[in-house]
Amino acid sequence: MKHSPRLTQLIDALRTLPGVGPKTAQRMAFHLLQEGRPGARALTDSLAAALDSVVRCKRCRMLTESELCTICAAPQREMSLLCAVESPADVVAIESSGSYRGRYFVLMGHLSPLDGIGPEQLGMREFEAILDEGAVHELILATNSTVEGEATAHYLSELAARRGIRASRIAYGVPVGGELEYVDGGTLAHALAGRQAV
Amino acid sequence: MKHSPRLTQLIDALRTLPGVGPKTAQRMAFHLLQEGRPGARALTDSLAAALDSVVRCKRCRMLTESELCTICAAPQREMSLLCAVESPADVVAIESSGSYRGRYFVLMGHLSPLDGIGPEQLGMREFEAILDEGAVHELILATNSTVEGEATAHYLSELAARRGIRASRIAYGVPVGGELEYVDGGTLAHALAGRQAV
Repeated sequence: MKHSPRLTQLIDALRTLPGVGPKTAQRMAFHLLQEGRPGARALTDSLAAALDSVVRCKRCRMLTESELCTICAAPQREMSLLCAVESPADVVAIESSGSYRGRYFVLMGHLSPLDGIGPEQLGMREFEAILDEGAVHELILATNSTVEGEATAHYLSELAARRGIRASRIAYGVPVGGELEYVDGGTLAHALAGRQAV
Repeated sequence: MKHSPRLTQLIDALRTLPGVGPKTAQRMAFHLLQEGRPGARALTDSLAAALDSVVRCKRCRMLTESELCTICAAPQREMSLLCAVESPADVVAIESSGSYRGRYFVLMGHLSPLDGIGPEQLGMREFEAILDEGAVHELILATNSTVEGEATAHYLSELAARRGIRASRIAYGVPVGGELEYVDGGTLAHALAGRQAV
């Protein structure tokens, strides 16, 4: 069945959201145009407002509404620790662990030459500028443990090594609460190789 | 970690979408503000346009951009068959089966007194007006097979009976391609009770 043109446009626009296929987009569109109308207005307004006001932190590239994000602007965060992550969601995840008091650098992606994403696109100029300030003593590489994430981590570690800055990679291993039976072989191999004395 | 106010607003607005929880909303927001910016503009524009132009069909309450939806406006659709469904998505589903040539009435919900949804909210005035025209010979009840859907179907069937119009309920049974082993007991009981001679 063919939808009306405006409805088709809306469904197409919703499909650009991550994890949303044609069926979900249709369900969302119907919801927005029926019982969800007040929410729909709030969505257009807040999305337009966010598109206008949310920018990247000048220093770490995190999403923010000011020149500096709250973490870069906080004087109590350690300057000596810098944690490189692929996305703002990773910053949120690490922050929610409550176990890190340093600063971040958000790459907004990973090296992927086939997609035209090189060091330039990952903000390497800003990144090297931070390293050159001399305040960072350790670079923590928290990119994803995918092929691209590893390649990116390797690239960043070389930039650090060139300046005599220590680089470390977050640990691989068995997730806390995970059962060995269901952990994949690659993770188990890493968990064994990275075993620590008790 | 606390997001900036505009970002928080956007995440809250996205959470009103069906099937979207806090994590998904955050992922969508980050996507929209990063690589998804062109799509985000398209989304605000198309949603605002749809909110302004998509209305309910005057006759059957389907979502449309004109006074009458394409089905109600099509002269070749049979006037004698009327199929009552709960939502526009149900119309889309039945239309895609390609096996129905009659018309629809979209209730936009089901009877649910606790939520304040009575006959008035389901457009019963328009519905009765259609039945009173005298063109409908059979009312097909295609509400969901939930308690509320059944109650709604029962209510509609009484409206039809009062006018001497035949009412029928879509068949319950084993889904085509389904394996008996995985079909629930209630469905199997219906499939057995509704068995037909071959």
